[in-house]
Amino acid sequence: MAQRKSFADMPCPIARGLEHVGEWWSMLILRDAMRGATRFEQFQDNLGIAPGMLTKRLAALVESGLLVRQRYHAHPPRDEYIVTPRGRDFRPILLAMLAWGNRHFPPDGPTVEIVDIETGEPVEPVLVDPRTQRPVDGPGYAVRTRAPAPDPTRRTNLEPAA
Amino acid sequence: MAQRKSFADMPCPIARGLEHVGEWWSMLILRDAMRGATRFEQFQDNLGIAPGMLTKRLAALVESGLLVRQRYHAHPPRDEYIVTPRGRDFRPILLAMLAWGNRHFPPDGPTVEIVDIETGEPVEPVLVDPRTQRPVDGPGYAVRTRAPAPDPTRRTNLEPAA
Repeated sequence: MAQRKSFADMPCPIARGLEHVGEWWSMLILRDAMRGATRFEQFQDNLGIAPGMLTKRLAALVESGLLVRQRYHAHPPRDEYIVTPRGRDFRPILLAMLAWGNRHFPPDGPTVEIVDIETGEPVEPVLVDPRTQRPVDGPGYAVRTRAPAPDPTRRTNLEPAA
Repeated sequence: MAQRKSFADMPCPIARGLEHVGEWWSMLILRDAMRGATRFEQFQDNLGIAPGMLTKRLAALVESGLLVRQRYHAHPPRDEYIVTPRGRDFRPILLAMLAWGNRHFPPDGPTVEIVDIETGEPVEPVLVDPRTQRPVDGPGYAVRTRAPAPDPTRRTNLEPAA
């Protein structure tokens, strides 16, 4: 395996997030877990992934707190993998990716899409500011860097001790 | 390099999308391109990525139609990389990932966040159905598979020729 630079120490939250979900297979494992897959064999069957690779990816997702491992059978020991709230919170990103995939790489066969259950209509989701309902990807929004808040437990030499 | 299974033929649009952006580095290169990086050296300096790897990733992003290569200097030949509309359309996903990264992997140092330019307030974006403003990740929405529409140019043996 080639050495791979870690994104963990980058100040960018996209990089810090990708450190945990950015490996080939990780997002698809997470997707399947959100659809209800819990057992090793289910992931393997769904994805056609090599067992050694799946073991590695599941361990990393558990390590990152996106899945949790639970024993469901004692003898022989068998574990299943359940999505945590942190993993569940990744779902909108997968849904946004689903919409993007459909727009730009349309399928030959069946279309997998987000639908409004009541009307059956397909939905093109938009990422908005919930306070204004405006797309954060549009005018009025920017990505900014904010300095860390001063740590009240740390005193600099310039401040009086009392 | 280990052989890697392609996601391209999976019916799932998330997998089809990841086929083009799912390699380690690809999303961060795209992120930098959207921030205005165009030249090889800029990507290299920003990311600290090995030149051979960067060459490969840029070529793949061009191949996928997310970046386009443009010559900006003839002698010696020098190219720059510009984000296409398809690449630009990936930005909401990166913004959603930014918000997720901040929530779940908070930084030690400065915080990079989405802000409302007018108020300066940080924004927690939500992926919604633009028709109802409700989160597509909540009740009322589902991911469904729709069979392909019949191809009018293809005639089956059961249909009369005229």
